[in-house]
Amino acid sequence: MRDIAVFSGSAHPELAAEVCAHLGVPLSPTRVSRFANDCLEVQLQANCRERDVFLVQPLIKPVQEHLVELLLMCDAARGASAGRITVVMPHYSYARSDKKDAPRISLGGRLVADLLVAAGAGRVLAMTLHAPQVHGFFSVPVDHLHALRELAAHFRQYDLTRTTVVSPDLGNAKEAAAFARMIGAQVAAGAKQRYADDRVTISSVIGDVAGRDVIVLDDEIAKGSTVLELLERLRESGPRSIRIACTHGLFAAGALKRLTEQPDVLEIVCTNTVPVPVEDHEEYPDYQDKLRILSIAPALAEAVRRIHNGESVSALFDAPRGE
Amino acid sequence: MRDIAVFSGSAHPELAAEVCAHLGVPLSPTRVSRFANDCLEVQLQANCRERDVFLVQPLIKPVQEHLVELLLMCDAARGASAGRITVVMPHYSYARSDKKDAPRISLGGRLVADLLVAAGAGRVLAMTLHAPQVHGFFSVPVDHLHALRELAAHFRQYDLTRTTVVSPDLGNAKEAAAFARMIGAQVAAGAKQRYADDRVTISSVIGDVAGRDVIVLDDEIAKGSTVLELLERLRESGPRSIRIACTHGLFAAGALKRLTEQPDVLEIVCTNTVPVPVEDHEEYPDYQDKLRILSIAPALAEAVRRIHNGESVSALFDAPRGE
Amino acid sequence: MRDIAVFSGSAHPELAAEVCAHLGVPLSPTRVSRFANDCLEVQLQANCRERDVFLVQPLIKPVQEHLVELLLMCDAARGASAGRITVVMPHYSYARSDKKDAPRISLGGRLVADLLVAAGAGRVLAMTLHAPQVHGFFSVPVDHLHALRELAAHFRQYDLTRTTVVSPDLGNAKEAAAFARMIGAQVAAGAKQRYADDRVTISSVIGDVAGRDVIVLDDEIAKGSTVLELLERLRESGPRSIRIACTHGLFAAGALKRLTEQPDVLEIVCTNTVPVPVEDHEEYPDYQDKLRILSIAPALAEAVRRIHNGESVSALFDAPRGE
Amino acid sequence: MRDIAVFSGSAHPELAAEVCAHLGVPLSPTRVSRFANDCLEVQLQANCRERDVFLVQPLIKPVQEHLVELLLMCDAARGASAGRITVVMPHYSYARSDKKDAPRISLGGRLVADLLVAAGAGRVLAMTLHAPQVHGFFSVPVDHLHALRELAAHFRQYDLTRTTVVSPDLGNAKEAAAFARMIGAQVAAGAKQRYADDRVTISSVIGDVAGRDVIVLDDEIAKGSTVLELLERLRESGPRSIRIACTHGLFAAGALKRLTEQPDVLEIVCTNTVPVPVEDHEEYPDYQDKLRILSIAPALAEAVRRIHNGESVSALFDAPRGE
Amino acid sequence: MRDIAVFSGSAHPELAAEVCAHLGVPLSPTRVSRFANDCLEVQLQANCRERDVFLVQPLIKPVQEHLVELLLMCDAARGASAGRITVVMPHYSYARSDKKDAPRISLGGRLVADLLVAAGAGRVLAMTLHAPQVHGFFSVPVDHLHALRELAAHFRQYDLTRTTVVSPDLGNAKEAAAFARMIGAQVAAGAKQRYADDRVTISSVIGDVAGRDVIVLDDEIAKGSTVLELLERLRESGPRSIRIACTHGLFAAGALKRLTEQPDVLEIVCTNTVPVPVEDHEEYPDYQDKLRILSIAPALAEAVRRIHNGESVSALFDAPRGE
Amino acid sequence: MRDIAVFSGSAHPELAAEVCAHLGVPLSPTRVSRFANDCLEVQLQANCRERDVFLVQPLIKPVQEHLVELLLMCDAARGASAGRITVVMPHYSYARSDKKDAPRISLGGRLVADLLVAAGAGRVLAMTLHAPQVHGFFSVPVDHLHALRELAAHFRQYDLTRTTVVSPDLGNAKEAAAFARMIGAQVAAGAKQRYADDRVTISSVIGDVAGRDVIVLDDEIAKGSTVLELLERLRESGPRSIRIACTHGLFAAGALKRLTEQPDVLEIVCTNTVPVPVEDHEEYPDYQDKLRILSIAPALAEAVRRIHNGESVSALFDAPRGE
Repeated sequence: MRDIAVFSGSAHPELAAEVCAHLGVPLSPTRVSRFANDCLEVQLQANCRERDVFLVQPLIKPVQEHLVELLLMCDAARGASAGRITVVMPHYSYARSDKKDAPRISLGGRLVADLLVAAGAGRVLAMTLHAPQVHGFFSVPVDHLHALRELAAHFRQYDLTRTTVVSPDLGNAKEAAAFARMIGAQVAAGAKQRYADDRVTISSVIGDVAGRDVIVLDDEIAKGSTVLELLERLRESGPRSIRIACTHGLFAAGALKRLTEQPDVLEIVCTNTVPVPVEDHEEYPDYQDKLRILSIAPALAEAVRRIHNGESVSALFDAPRGE
Repeated sequence: MRDIAVFSGSAHPELAAEVCAHLGVPLSPTRVSRFANDCLEVQLQANCRERDVFLVQPLIKPVQEHLVELLLMCDAARGASAGRITVVMPHYSYARSDKKDAPRISLGGRLVADLLVAAGAGRVLAMTLHAPQVHGFFSVPVDHLHALRELAAHFRQYDLTRTTVVSPDLGNAKEAAAFARMIGAQVAAGAKQRYADDRVTISSVIGDVAGRDVIVLDDEIAKGSTVLELLERLRESGPRSIRIACTHGLFAAGALKRLTEQPDVLEIVCTNTVPVPVEDHEEYPDYQDKLRILSIAPALAEAVRRIHNGESVSALFDAPRGE
Repeated sequence: MRDIAVFSGSAHPELAAEVCAHLGVPLSPTRVSRFANDCLEVQLQANCRERDVFLVQPLIKPVQEHLVELLLMCDAARGASAGRITVVMPHYSYARSDKKDAPRISLGGRLVADLLVAAGAGRVLAMTLHAPQVHGFFSVPVDHLHALRELAAHFRQYDLTRTTVVSPDLGNAKEAAAFARMIGAQVAAGAKQRYADDRVTISSVIGDVAGRDVIVLDDEIAKGSTVLELLERLRESGPRSIRIACTHGLFAAGALKRLTEQPDVLEIVCTNTVPVPVEDHEEYPDYQDKLRILSIAPALAEAVRRIHNGESVSALFDAPRGE
Repeated sequence: MRDIAVFSGSAHPELAAEVCAHLGVPLSPTRVSRFANDCLEVQLQANCRERDVFLVQPLIKPVQEHLVELLLMCDAARGASAGRITVVMPHYSYARSDKKDAPRISLGGRLVADLLVAAGAGRVLAMTLHAPQVHGFFSVPVDHLHALRELAAHFRQYDLTRTTVVSPDLGNAKEAAAFARMIGAQVAAGAKQRYADDRVTISSVIGDVAGRDVIVLDDEIAKGSTVLELLERLRESGPRSIRIACTHGLFAAGALKRLTEQPDVLEIVCTNTVPVPVEDHEEYPDYQDKLRILSIAPALAEAVRRIHNGESVSALFDAPRGE
Repeated sequence: MRDIAVFSGSAHPELAAEVCAHLGVPLSPTRVSRFANDCLEVQLQANCRERDVFLVQPLIKPVQEHLVELLLMCDAARGASAGRITVVMPHYSYARSDKKDAPRISLGGRLVADLLVAAGAGRVLAMTLHAPQVHGFFSVPVDHLHALRELAAHFRQYDLTRTTVVSPDLGNAKEAAAFARMIGAQVAAGAKQRYADDRVTISSVIGDVAGRDVIVLDDEIAKGSTVLELLERLRESGPRSIRIACTHGLFAAGALKRLTEQPDVLEIVCTNTVPVPVEDHEEYPDYQDKLRILSIAPALAEAVRRIHNGESVSALFDAPRGE
Repeated sequence: MRDIAVFSGSAHPELAAEVCAHLGVPLSPTRVSRFANDCLEVQLQANCRERDVFLVQPLIKPVQEHLVELLLMCDAARGASAGRITVVMPHYSYARSDKKDAPRISLGGRLVADLLVAAGAGRVLAMTLHAPQVHGFFSVPVDHLHALRELAAHFRQYDLTRTTVVSPDLGNAKEAAAFARMIGAQVAAGAKQRYADDRVTISSVIGDVAGRDVIVLDDEIAKGSTVLELLERLRESGPRSIRIACTHGLFAAGALKRLTEQPDVLEIVCTNTVPVPVEDHEEYPDYQDKLRILSIAPALAEAVRRIHNGESVSALFDAPRGE
């Protein structure tokens, strides 16, 4: 596989290295300098000319740093006459800013898509976008993978005959329904209600969860507040067991600790689209017993390989995607 | 209100005329010619130079004719030096093509947005887009109105204490939940299951509907098959009453007749974003007793007025939009 | 010839199949779905990734349907990461909208060119554009073939020593003059005069046609009214024989029948850039004796082959094109 | 008329001054510097900020100098925050490069249109484009005036009952036909034939000219060779009188002298879209007796006034334009 | 001054407030939210529709946060139908990335200019760009102010008869020369030499400084290392006095303390294009005696006023800029 | 090396031929026609389809002719379906218009960069741009070579131990400093002062030149006035010897003669990026003794070869470029 060059930004070099290992190509070095005035400069330290360049960077915290770094990487690759520039963005956090639900707000999901193209990105490889419509925010081709296949493979080790997949909110229920169909389970969802002035909370779970083996599924878990709120509602109905699953395990602000400490949560499953923060694991050593991190590097590597070779990506990842 | 020029394509001149009546401005004439080779030519028959031009056209059947006509109208206005071109598109049917759920398919929702901009559209006034993310498909400013306010005003005449708003599918449940909150009701949704090979049907309704006054809410009703399928599931739970509501009453292929004939459907409520087909009403005279068409012309006219005057549109239509 | 993928829209699959037969490549299947709301969705059913994709679609009646379908095909190919997208448009009907001869009219010839590029078209292969200037409406490379070579080959079977090529109007006379030079004939043209208010008719034929073998040549015959009007003027001068030739035989509104019924018209020659409507041929069985349809599939196939291989297209088709 | 700023390049300041006189606004000064390395720099020497800027420059010899100067003027106006930039281009010489009649040639008519837009031009005011299709080469609004009205007014002083308007070639015959209809005359055209290898000459005149008062009409006369060749053919048929008319009197390479010296040419009529070269008139003093230069400054001024005020330009100049 | 709306990002609200005070308009509030996944969302909390919107944000540390925030502000203003969007960027830190002096590096100065335009910026008001060529990186109009006028006014209080302005390096010497001419002084510059491998240091000062009153002038002082190195070289020549001046006083990493502690530095003069970090002033109380911060708010306010009113900005700020 | 096609405009065919000789490929012929109305048309007379096309043209006098010719060449190559278009521009004269130092002036350096891209240029190979920031004016990749390597190789034949490189002005001193470091010399620069009103002259040389071997270095010498003025100042300090070096030897208006006639100038060294005007050498036969023209054709050829083969260009030409 000559003519390919894979670079990683500073967000998740471990994932890039793992993808490269699967591809059997070296991870080309990137130099990121920070000047005294806090501006960044990127140097791609391998020949890009006419190469098929892949830039790996999930948009994780600090998001703005990683985003600008990624834009500079695109610019550097373009200026260095890259043959094609594919942004491999396993986590597109700005995808959550996908609609105008208040006056005069920014629409980050579309803006960042435009910025990437303005910086030279020629195509994008993304994973589990918050809403499938975000695909349409990009004016360049997007290959949109899902981690549902990996998650399903994990859960099939269990008896799923009494399982209900629960989406924390109705807006994301479609993905939960698709996942439920993949593993032959039922589906349920949290419904929110507005109180008093502007406080919105999950008022009930619609669908049957009493006596069921529940898998709470969300695309991304950040602070975990919504999941915790859902757990309270679920417990009112008496589920038989609870597991939590997501693609993007951001686990910000001690979320991993709080979720792990829930005694009735048997397992927390996520993937490595983002690096799972484990720095403070000594405080709660038990999380290792409950946390399962599935690797999506093989899937990304296979997609990169097919993109590079001009083979069909959809042929491989043609999982059921919605209703 | 000088300097404004409103034109209508051939899709829904009645609505354009009603909007103009509310604005107190004349509807400027449009000439659409069809050549022997079936090509269209549009002539805007009032001065556009430096005017604030509004082009009214919902994308209804025949969609392709109306779309190309609208694109030609944009082109004519641009070539005639319009000061600003706003497309008033009360029904954006292509918004339903909003995601890539199969390999190598077109993404009509984004493509048509790009075509409108390529033809000269400078801004868009839309109503009840299929998904709020479609807003982000446009690279020009979009004012996105909702008919939920009009629908809520209509239903508030009834006792809503035992009401459940039911979305036919989970993918649209968020809007149903928002509507439910507006009128102080509960929410439920149809859940689909995949059978045998690729047949997907509504397998159950998640949420309580037994003994409830049900309002089935969808953004658009075309053939009505989904709603009919949902009605079957609903009846299994014994609702107290059933009403149907939607923004865009396309009622294709006899849908209006089929829905009206359901004896337990008390009412079908839609708006006039599209012309409701009543040509064959003599065959089923009863539909007049059940059908209620709410006019969104006042809302559109007020939005046009505010756009023209540079006043805040969101200030007026700031309805709750999702969770 | 690997790496090439040819798709046909629904306008003229027979021509696409014939081109593919000449190329020795399969015609890849296209699925066009029409939703209940009348919107179209296109799926290209063969891998496009990095392929050299050719989309065959003349813009014939229903033009708007075929145009939007073609735009969706471009979009699907682009989204599927096609290496290059060439629109093969044997008949570009919108080319007739090539000038602003009235205030505030659309300029369809340029607009549709821009729409194709906005949808992803990277190059265009066209045939006998209404005016050669239409070439300049496209911002992407255009290969513009002429059917004059095929038409000349056909007419060279006759004695051409007393032949005059007649253009129905002066605006198209340049092409007739070029064709006349190709076959060593003279040229004449119909001249129009304005009557009373806004009626324009052919008042005379300028150039000698008395006692000549006349070939009436136009780029496109739709309703045939202009040709019929010209025939009346020609007969006043007593030509020895009359033949009619055109590239695009649209023959709308019974034109083929009306022309065939002219007793002094010996022959009607066209090509298969568009499917010639023969469905009602039983009503006038004689047309088969007079109609000659020349195939331009070999020329298109050779052009496609050369485009794909990066060989000079002009080297092959370098026919005299104007004065 | 405040807020307007008119600048002239160095091509035809007399015309710009005359237009300004009609408008009653001053001609703002432009400084064009030429550096030692032969590069140009333009400074617009009046405030442009938010002004309605008009840049007057016909593309006459030296064309390249005047074109680059015009592009720099556009750039300077854009950089100076002009509210709107209208290029007033009474003669668009590159419009003659409007088709690809040989392989791998430049298409100057489209290219220069794109360059003007790239340099910041927001609209164009042109006069008598070589072909009406050239209008479509611009992606910005074009107001296309014709000098036929001025020419017709001039010729109406004569008895036109036996007049034939003759186009030197068939490609331009449409305009001659339109002019003939305006003044109630007949039309004829020169037809060309190819000899031996690649020499093309006017072989005959199609249409009646014997005993007629002939007006030879072309859009532009440069070297005058075509007109001289036509005169030879015309004389073979014995016209009663000959006059020559054109919009753009370039009269390059002594053309004015050669045409004036034709004893049977009674009059040569042109307009001042370009400065008529009279520097060497002492050599042939008689040309003053035959040459008539009509001013199009009033028409341009009225168009500029209407553009500035947002009034309909077409309403004024709605002359018959073709068949 | 109605129709204007000024918003500030979080970088330097004090400056924005001061500009607004000079303008006599309120500073409209901006809400910046940070989601759990670290993404930002901006809401402009005053009507933007058709307004003349000014967004004030110098790109200071944390630069990436402030840059993305500014891009989101542009996007929000565009989506809210702002009439015009002017980015007021008193410090464009990325301007330092203005050339490719190593292979495959990013060119941040041009990239960020493109990103701002992609996000909707319609014009830029900048101050003392690192190199005047950076102006040309923007495809929209730029008003480029200089603080040299303010700095000159400050230094004119002193006897300048024996003054030499010293640029730390030759690359910036042109600006120092311009400043020297403004105040009637001489000019000198530090020259660098490369040692051993890749270490570059100031080896000498070219020009006379012995016995002179020296003003060290740079556009920006960040860590201050270059200035400190220059001071060492200067001392070798025995200047009579030393003052330091710059436009952008970033003073990162204790630079202000280090410079203040130099006993022979009499004064450090900068402007408030960026907020000068004074949080740790208790550690070195003397800095207040040496530091002078000149306000450029009056100049910015006047420029904003003129931009808004369509008056000439250059007329006001036409300071000598280079040789 | 198949698939490459090199064309030359009319500016410097000798250089193009020399580059081709080094590459071992033929120089493909270009036909440039000038019409009677002074417009140009370009025909590239070798197949361009899918080829890697290189267009060689320095922008020398007559600059506007050569620029428009180059733009037409780009357009012709694009229309002929070139695979890639690289403009080889050994002298980019418009780069000198790189900043706005007066109100409402054109910014030619950026404008021409945009025009080239608008005409179809996909990348640029340039040499010794006036300022390195000009690189950032292009939105396509630029390979920027320097002739410092060639110049250094030439001067290394001399004893350089007492050498000072002198820049005529401070604005260009950085390049002189870089060259000085390359050859182990010192650096000095002319400093300008403003007199009376607006006259600016070199008032002094800052840095030591007394008793030194001086190399005056500039990027371009046109009229030579600045160099002559510098020589006067230098002589006041008594240098040991004087040599003059530049990359672009335009030598306009007798500059070569004037410089050669300076008795104390030992040598004038330039390169062949532009054709050195030698037509009038008989008037001053001595110039042959002093003039040395170094060829940069080998460097250009190697860069073209590497660009074509996708090899790193920076790896080869990685000379020190500034401080």
